[in-house]
Amino acid sequence: MDKIGYLGPNGTFTEYAAKTMFPKEAFIPYKTIPNCIDAVMEGEIDFAVVPIENTIEGSVNLTIDYLLHEQTLPIVAEIVVPIEQHLMVHPAIADQWEQVEAVYSHPHAIAQCHHFLRNKLSEAELKYTNSTGSAAEWLKNNPKELSAAIANELAAKTYGLTIVQKNIHDFDNNHTKFVVLNRHKKPVEKNDLYCGDKTTFIVTLPSDYTGALHQVLSAFAWRKLNLSKIESRPMKTGLGNYFFIIDIEMKADDILIQGAKSEIEALGCGVSILGSYPCFSSEVSKKKVGVSS
Amino acid sequence: MDKIGYLGPNGTFTEYAAKTMFPKEAFIPYKTIPNCIDAVMEGEIDFAVVPIENTIEGSVNLTIDYLLHEQTLPIVAEIVVPIEQHLMVHPAIADQWEQVEAVYSHPHAIAQCHHFLRNKLSEAELKYTNSTGSAAEWLKNNPKELSAAIANELAAKTYGLTIVQKNIHDFDNNHTKFVVLNRHKKPVEKNDLYCGDKTTFIVTLPSDYTGALHQVLSAFAWRKLNLSKIESRPMKTGLGNYFFIIDIEMKADDILIQGAKSEIEALGCGVSILGSYPCFSSEVSKKKVGVSS
Repeated sequence: MDKIGYLGPNGTFTEYAAKTMFPKEAFIPYKTIPNCIDAVMEGEIDFAVVPIENTIEGSVNLTIDYLLHEQTLPIVAEIVVPIEQHLMVHPAIADQWEQVEAVYSHPHAIAQCHHFLRNKLSEAELKYTNSTGSAAEWLKNNPKELSAAIANELAAKTYGLTIVQKNIHDFDNNHTKFVVLNRHKKPVEKNDLYCGDKTTFIVTLPSDYTGALHQVLSAFAWRKLNLSKIESRPMKTGLGNYFFIIDIEMKADDILIQGAKSEIEALGCGVSILGSYPCFSSEVSKKKVGVSS
Repeated sequence: MDKIGYLGPNGTFTEYAAKTMFPKEAFIPYKTIPNCIDAVMEGEIDFAVVPIENTIEGSVNLTIDYLLHEQTLPIVAEIVVPIEQHLMVHPAIADQWEQVEAVYSHPHAIAQCHHFLRNKLSEAELKYTNSTGSAAEWLKNNPKELSAAIANELAAKTYGLTIVQKNIHDFDNNHTKFVVLNRHKKPVEKNDLYCGDKTTFIVTLPSDYTGALHQVLSAFAWRKLNLSKIESRPMKTGLGNYFFIIDIEMKADDILIQGAKSEIEALGCGVSILGSYPCFSSEVSKKKVGVSS
């Protein structure tokens, strides 16, 4: 059985993503993204599952910068899950939820449920926690408080809470993308959540070369390699010096991907491949998610 | 006399940048970036000065997202200043600084002085504040504490503190870029810190068009328009949907810039120009900075 580390605590969206990908393994929560990445680097766990991008908040810079600057570990899979926020309370106060005096959650979750909170719980005080999971955990440990948490279904099951209002988030199309990391490029088996392959390039441009990025993109364009993402992150060496993270919607091969890589190197760019991996989406078949307390 | 709003409190790098740009105007600190941008939108101030990018931390997403999604205000100037962090204490304890029990500063500033703190003050507790300016303000208000702050020269002068160690930051090439916003595109006068012009494009790509970004960059490349920056930010409509923020090192004209804009529109992209403006750098002539308490 593989050991899967994830950004904890129990009941977070990262745990939900990890259990969607790996229904039957052993799971270990880590307090921070760097802790989780270090653990897979040191062989303490087989796979790490960490968030990399959210529809509303954008990239998780901590994950990207840690992979670029500290621990370069191959990506072996990607999993996308919808962010569905629910209002939950201790079962003892389920019929009084409209009188709660405080709502606990992560600042992003509270921001994402702005309209619901303003319309239905405008009197409640908003209290920030480190994660949606820890908000649910707090409620479990404080059953006498007249409080609610915003978290996901897994958190409600994990901490024995009652969901009193489902899907209270403002935008329906909010998703988070997680990457799965493994030290030895151990492949993740495809299942029926599989929805395609991707290859991630990291490119640095030669300085003072007008049109260098255009030339890099030409190497992909004339091969009809589709970019699903391009993003810049600072190299930390000076303003305007960036790494470019480029996702190509194709599995690495010896001809097209390798040809593009060689051509970009010949332009004087730094180029490496962070991974070539299958992508999964929990919405391909939502019922299969391994939610259990 | 113009009113200049900036991200406060007194003694921040934003105040330093604002006073570098506008030595003789009236200055008003704001608590948050959105407050400062709203104030210029509502006519409470003439210009707003807010940070947009740092060498080490990358873009200030709050500024970019607020300009893209909430208040679209033209950029009328850019100013780059070096981030030089100093250790300062209350004058009464200047000769005992090596015995300080706590060091106060913004988390980024503490991270940027990691080596100095580990080597010289490894026993001191690290205390986080909202800004470097508020760390210095705290020291002024608590003269009896055996504590130090990490902040800039302006903060030391503003709060009457003694700098006991200069330039304690790990990396010398750390700079922050600030943008100046004005509701009516009122131009900022060039002075001897002027170092060139820039035009900022905001581009959205048509969906499902392989090679669209390559085509956009072609419109710049064949005109030999140099990109000094390209960055993606989420549109918040779905994973993989981005705005691209593209800086061109040239003042807007009717032929090259306007031609590129029309061509990009003809490709089916959304395109707007967020500003065409002069750029300034405090390092062109460092002595002119209007530092005063």
